Amino acid sequence: MGGAFQSSDSSRTNGPRPHARTMTFDEPLALQLGGELAPVTVCYETYGTLSERRDNAVLICHALSGDAHVAAHDPGDAPGWWDIAVGPGKAIDTDRYFVLCANVLGGCYGTTGPGSTDPATGEPYGAEFPAITIADMVELQRRLIDALGIERLLAVIGGSMGGMQVLQWAAAYGDRVRAAVPIATTHRLTAQALAFDVVGRNAIRSDPAFRGGRYYGRRDGPADGLALARMIGHITYLSRQSMDEKFDADRHEPRPVAYAYESRYSVGSYLAYQGGRFVERFDANTYITLSMAMDAFDLGAAHGSLNAALKRATCRWLVVSFDSDWLFPPAQSRQLVNAIIAAEQPVTYCNIPTQCGHDAFLLADDLDMYGGLVEAFLARTLNGTIDDGAAGWHLHTDVRSIFHDNRVDLDRIMALIPAGVGVLDLGCGDGELMSRLRRRGTRDLLGVELNGEAILTCARRGLDVVQHDLRDGLAPFRDRQFEIVLLSQTLQTVLRPDRLLLEMLRVGEKGIVSFPNFGHRDCRRQLAEEGISPVTGGLPFTWYASPNVRFLSIRDFESLCVELGIRIHRRIALDTAAGCEVHDDPNLNADMAIFLLSRG
Amino acid sequence: MGGAFQSSDSSRTNGPRPHARTMTFDEPLALQLGGELAPVTVCYETYGTLSERRDNAVLICHALSGDAHVAAHDPGDAPGWWDIAVGPGKAIDTDRYFVLCANVLGGCYGTTGPGSTDPATGEPYGAEFPAITIADMVELQRRLIDALGIERLLAVIGGSMGGMQVLQWAAAYGDRVRAAVPIATTHRLTAQALAFDVVGRNAIRSDPAFRGGRYYGRRDGPADGLALARMIGHITYLSRQSMDEKFDADRHEPRPVAYAYESRYSVGSYLAYQGGRFVERFDANTYITLSMAMDAFDLGAAHGSLNAALKRATCRWLVVSFDSDWLFPPAQSRQLVNAIIAAEQPVTYCNIPTQCGHDAFLLADDLDMYGGLVEAFLARTLNGTIDDGAAGWHLHTDVRSIFHDNRVDLDRIMALIPAGVGVLDLGCGDGELMSRLRRRGTRDLLGVELNGEAILTCARRGLDVVQHDLRDGLAPFRDRQFEIVLLSQTLQTVLRPDRLLLEMLRVGEKGIVSFPNFGHRDCRRQLAEEGISPVTGGLPFTWYASPNVRFLSIRDFESLCVELGIRIHRRIALDTAAGCEVHDDPNLNADMAIFLLSRG
Repeated sequence: MGGAFQSSDSSRTNGPRPHARTMTFDEPLALQLGGELAPVTVCYETYGTLSERRDNAVLICHALSGDAHVAAHDPGDAPGWWDIAVGPGKAIDTDRYFVLCANVLGGCYGTTGPGSTDPATGEPYGAEFPAITIADMVELQRRLIDALGIERLLAVIGGSMGGMQVLQWAAAYGDRVRAAVPIATTHRLTAQALAFDVVGRNAIRSDPAFRGGRYYGRRDGPADGLALARMIGHITYLSRQSMDEKFDADRHEPRPVAYAYESRYSVGSYLAYQGGRFVERFDANTYITLSMAMDAFDLGAAHGSLNAALKRATCRWLVVSFDSDWLFPPAQSRQLVNAIIAAEQPVTYCNIPTQCGHDAFLLADDLDMYGGLVEAFLARTLNGTIDDGAAGWHLHTDVRSIFHDNRVDLDRIMALIPAGVGVLDLGCGDGELMSRLRRRGTRDLLGVELNGEAILTCARRGLDVVQHDLRDGLAPFRDRQFEIVLLSQTLQTVLRPDRLLLEMLRVGEKGIVSFPNFGHRDCRRQLAEEGISPVTGGLPFTWYASPNVRFLSIRDFESLCVELGIRIHRRIALDTAAGCEVHDDPNLNADMAIFLLSRG
Repeated sequence: MGGAFQSSDSSRTNGPRPHARTMTFDEPLALQLGGELAPVTVCYETYGTLSERRDNAVLICHALSGDAHVAAHDPGDAPGWWDIAVGPGKAIDTDRYFVLCANVLGGCYGTTGPGSTDPATGEPYGAEFPAITIADMVELQRRLIDALGIERLLAVIGGSMGGMQVLQWAAAYGDRVRAAVPIATTHRLTAQALAFDVVGRNAIRSDPAFRGGRYYGRRDGPADGLALARMIGHITYLSRQSMDEKFDADRHEPRPVAYAYESRYSVGSYLAYQGGRFVERFDANTYITLSMAMDAFDLGAAHGSLNAALKRATCRWLVVSFDSDWLFPPAQSRQLVNAIIAAEQPVTYCNIPTQCGHDAFLLADDLDMYGGLVEAFLARTLNGTIDDGAAGWHLHTDVRSIFHDNRVDLDRIMALIPAGVGVLDLGCGDGELMSRLRRRGTRDLLGVELNGEAILTCARRGLDVVQHDLRDGLAPFRDRQFEIVLLSQTLQTVLRPDRLLLEMLRVGEKGIVSFPNFGHRDCRRQLAEEGISPVTGGLPFTWYASPNVRFLSIRDFESLCVELGIRIHRRIALDTAAGCEVHDDPNLNADMAIFLLSRG
């Protein structure tokens, strides 16, 4: 259990906080890139109460400039960096969970870092502080939870650099994490993000006051260099849109700021303020140390491949990205999700539409979405199954299914699915079908959906759904990953149904497809006799505003199956108005069809 | 004409080039933000021969770090910054055009700038160099062309800061510019671009060696600060995708560089190299001066509004943007194009798909597109009309019209258009209909098209086309801007034909719409008798791979017109196979319909 340690009130570089604790380990911490550190102190804060079963501990990992003070402990306490999300009754509810947050290794808020005293010299480490990695940070956190007697964390949650720690936790200590929530993060920075970090470090190092990192105890430090690095960082944390919103209307009206940097434009005064403020509260050597750790993070390389790294995890996942985040772009989260899918681990993924850029995870603007997802996910992880009263959550989305209020088809589809098989539901909407399947005992269930609100509804029902556009095919899924792939009332809404059919029958051993039948007699009569584009009970939309873009009869579908070499195992033709199956000339008499299919 | 001047061989800050000339004006140059400069020297280079009619002069305006040496003059000459585009037989063909490029005011390549001697002190201006604007740069260029006896420029062309000069030329000296080609530019920077500039200037100014701009004659200058500014700039010139392409595969294999900056990653060594190189060839005060001029540029604010500014122009326009350019994002070029449209000036616009980011206009990757557009545009401007042998240009795009080889409909549409009216052709494709109209004498013609290759084909035919997605409506166009708006064989390909119809009848006094008739007897028979989604001569696509997403009969269309309050002036029903008009039960017997419409 990580060697001897002492617990004490904190004495931190940036001044002790009333609720902070520290713990010091004398046993050397062996570092991933070589060398070791001893002793090692970790500064942390906790919120809420550890349950008797010790099963409600949530570790929150902070980002580059954060610290252990994730939230205020009481109304008189200083604000925390994630007050909006952490506290009694909040998304990460400290009435239910034991929340733990520690300043990272290399930090400047109480945990051992470049500003700490090097026992070998009695001086601050400064530039002699060894290169550390995200893995080293996690190793120290692991010692901390060992010391606190926490066998298994309910969840590890973090954004940005904090999200990297989440990934490392899952890969390194899969057996000690039940749920992982990486937010706005990546397993490996883009070259662009790397480049901004390089420039930031160059700014610090080329500041003469940096003196090769030996500025502690002097009156001046690399204030200009650190401020420049922070200014660059701030630009990358915001989106272009949000910067225009904040600064464009009054671009020539800078706020007065007390710092020496250019404050000619309103955005200039903002950057001058942020840069100047940062210098007052942060250490340049820590900035270099942590940004180097982020730059070096490459979870895939450390384990041969990203897929191999994530195969080591055994947790469930909630991955969240923000669509205007260009520093940790959503495509990177999708890569991550694809690797989790390849590792066949349960995952929910949502890319939240926002103007807020990378900073979104720290802001209230999108809290309803990301906080809602985290809240539902934690509750589900703690409680195991969720009661389906969650159907009370209402789905505020465009109704894509034409049979929204009359899902006679769902019973038929349910009847086609054997118990205990794995099911992928494409275009799962609010999860009604998955919910029914789970009530029947199906456990290996995954939905695919484009609409974020629908994904939140599914999350609240305790269902896993991955946000994905069916137009992009099903590349994340391997051949025959599921016994059954469903495509209910969605085929007619995609531009290339032929391609989607082939994809679903690649991914599933069997596929179940349902669609409205354009060959139904009402359609025929309207076109033939009235000369109009049909509007019927089964196809109730006017030609110019239909969600459907493809119109197919049962016969058309069967011809396509022949053409594509698709085998039809079962065909169910329905008269949904009468609520019964049709056996006589289905292409004429059925308004809906359900097919059970397989490839070849 | 602009006061006295002397012409002489160049003696430039960065060493004279063999083909450079300078011209010095003694008459003070009054600056837009106050103050004046005298004397003022401009360093320029020319290529090709000014025609006797002096009508072939093309002014090229350079970007922030460029100079007058736009291209090599001969094989032994040093490379120019736009060799790929300028030279004998190239897009800007020096065998045909007299090409002129001058170092900008404030520059450090021979034109008066902060490094020039202040006659008041006998010392370099340094930080005392006055704040200048894009308008001041253009004013000096105007003096130069006056002195060269050029009454009217054939074209002004430039990218980035060069494009800002193009805009200023058009707004300030509309009568002296026949054609304006702003590339990858804007009338006003985003707050994000402004922010990067602010940080770059802070880096220079906070370098102790900057000494408030008084570093001339000293051994050291603000090398670190200028290198940092350049590194930041370089990141913004590339796209995230292109950086990953260049630097990701071998991210841990930096190239050896001789500069002191961090070169840990391959992208780091690239930035270190670029930063170091730049310091050797560029002046920090010039960097500050020019970036301040870019930041202050706001063409709209200078004239009340962007529309008002562009109303002062009288030229024709070619606007080019690049889709991965995030420093001067395409949305800004669209704003510009919309203002040109509002000013009712002829314009072609293309947003070129590329990975190259802002730098694209300097690279060969997309030269076929942007060079092709510029070449066609210049030829057309010089020659007036273009012979339509250009039909020889072949359109390599998906054929969207179902009547590609049998355009019996075009003759009918032509017959509906009175001579001499203004026509907007929505979804104009390769411009066949516009070309026919022009041959018939129609002059006020504009196409709207999404496909870039089609736009290039139109440009080569001498037609103006604006790239625009019809799904976004027709907001750029004012009410009744055209007598006729065409929508030929496109209505059935858009998701909301009702909205597009209303938009086109807002923008046009009359609208002409043609579409395939889903009520045709072949369609009816196939659905009614065979129970299949129809595939006919008029609708020749299989249900699952059709470019069409809406299926409407003549009757459907007429019902929609009633619903929307659209008045039908003329209906032409065609049997395209027989090549004749249908009068008997058109909804049954016609496979295509053409409608002449108006609002209310």
